Amino acid sequence: MFSTHGSPDEAFRAHQAMGQGVEFDTIRLLMSRWGDLAVDIGDDAAVLPRLISGQRVVSTDACVEDVHFRRAWLTPFEVGHRAAAAALSDLAAMGARAECVLVAFIVPPSWEGDLPQVADGIGSQVRAAGARIVGGNLSRGRIFAITLTVIGVAERVVSRAGAAVGDLVLVTGTLGGPGAALAAWENGNAPEAWARSRFAAPSPRLAAGAALAAAGATAMLDISDGIAADARHLGAASGVWLALDERRLPVGPGVEPASALVSGEEYELLVTMPPAAFAAVAERWEAEQGVSLTVVGAVESAGAAEETAAVRGHDHFGTDQ
Amino acid sequence: MFSTHGSPDEAFRAHQAMGQGVEFDTIRLLMSRWGDLAVDIGDDAAVLPRLISGQRVVSTDACVEDVHFRRAWLTPFEVGHRAAAAALSDLAAMGARAECVLVAFIVPPSWEGDLPQVADGIGSQVRAAGARIVGGNLSRGRIFAITLTVIGVAERVVSRAGAAVGDLVLVTGTLGGPGAALAAWENGNAPEAWARSRFAAPSPRLAAGAALAAAGATAMLDISDGIAADARHLGAASGVWLALDERRLPVGPGVEPASALVSGEEYELLVTMPPAAFAAVAERWEAEQGVSLTVVGAVESAGAAEETAAVRGHDHFGTDQ
Repeated sequence: MFSTHGSPDEAFRAHQAMGQGVEFDTIRLLMSRWGDLAVDIGDDAAVLPRLISGQRVVSTDACVEDVHFRRAWLTPFEVGHRAAAAALSDLAAMGARAECVLVAFIVPPSWEGDLPQVADGIGSQVRAAGARIVGGNLSRGRIFAITLTVIGVAERVVSRAGAAVGDLVLVTGTLGGPGAALAAWENGNAPEAWARSRFAAPSPRLAAGAALAAAGATAMLDISDGIAADARHLGAASGVWLALDERRLPVGPGVEPASALVSGEEYELLVTMPPAAFAAVAERWEAEQGVSLTVVGAVESAGAAEETAAVRGHDHFGTDQ
Repeated sequence: MFSTHGSPDEAFRAHQAMGQGVEFDTIRLLMSRWGDLAVDIGDDAAVLPRLISGQRVVSTDACVEDVHFRRAWLTPFEVGHRAAAAALSDLAAMGARAECVLVAFIVPPSWEGDLPQVADGIGSQVRAAGARIVGGNLSRGRIFAITLTVIGVAERVVSRAGAAVGDLVLVTGTLGGPGAALAAWENGNAPEAWARSRFAAPSPRLAAGAALAAAGATAMLDISDGIAADARHLGAASGVWLALDERRLPVGPGVEPASALVSGEEYELLVTMPPAAFAAVAERWEAEQGVSLTVVGAVESAGAAEETAAVRGHDHFGTDQ
């Protein structure tokens, strides 16, 4: 039943031949956009290859019109790109490579013509991640929504719970873009190109996440609620207290540190790691990864869950701690 | 990182401690309803145990208000029960046992108060299936929708593609209930209790599917579009021609065979199997499985994809073939 193709793991199955019907026609349209990205479509469920090493991780993530984006802000391609990047980012935060994706669409009539471009946007991120599309669901509905389930394989799983006193707190990339883009749109303005791109076309940090896992990251998550809130989430899970230094935040052009602290949906990684482990990767990091890795704080003490992160230099009246 | 608990497979991880926030409060509410059914909640992704044997299969399925049901028809518990049963049915159709489920909710304000009962309905089916809830997503939105991703483990995968000439065509259970319930509601009437229950509270045939796989089923799917259409789907995937005998359909009380043929969302299994394999399981089937297994036709010849099933006795003018 299975062919092999040089991968250390087994391969996915071939598609099932499908009969006639309107839903099948739409599935065939999606498959024509996805080409070789789509495998094992048409059965009741997809069969995952047996793994040679590592552990599977799984996450599901929804992108809903008028909740996560407004149609006027994004092209249909960007809607798909962003939904897929956001979902894949959860795999990056576990230190996993992306293996496969399932895509459940809710499609109102007004979106039907845009579905091929949305599919292309999803496909661009699945392809960049080296993953395959192994299933999905199509439903009508009064709002447009994409719920993506992503499955990855981690050689070393990094949870949110391993941060230890003395670890450095690090962040990938440059913060504040999505927050700046949202603020512009909500004020009726066009965002700056950099900020717009950070909202519309984020990059899940899959290679960086796997490298950080291999390098000894003790805890990791992706920044979805803003680095200040996500530092508290990581602190709560680890039972430690994180101190962030606002002055060290890697902010984008024209972004105030205070805005970067609360800019969500960044899809950058927040990581804790012993200083020696960071020193071992820091020198060659940017050349190898193509994304910055910045020390923004330290794990200072064990702490109660309700007070697990604080920001220094966040006092605009000059009583800088 | 993992504990073991007597299962031949490894165990799921424990939950991550979560901090404060409205979304976390709703997650905690759901977790309080699900109790020990929910595991490994709170990280970016759940970690699946390593398997000792078998293969993982995965499927995703959406249940959208005003598309798959109307709120007036079902209790909130039934909305959850039905959504979970429908998703789990795809695992049954592969011959798989259910391992874990991820639940993505889109919740308008008008549904927030009903979420605990919806969660209970989902939980009832996850518990009956012996599975766990390992993640999900919460989103606001203008319609209520549940997208469930289900992961199972099959010792022997049964696809749609293996039916062979000479196989019997079998179906589990009794058909026509969901169609009769929908017809009643759409005519402004209350459905009969049996028909309503078949729509509102279906049972995924997980034990039957695994038993049929072990017994040598050659192809299998679950009846979502009506047995006539699904026989064509199975025929298309297998490249064979299925002949169904309308007079042999196991119909519910008061259901005409012609209605049973097109009654969808049955979540019964349509199976092909060599006669000898059927004979080996038929005698003890109903006592062991608690659900009927009825011969409804045969695989008659190799066939083109566009004409892969036909129904005998479906002529209401008496020229019964």
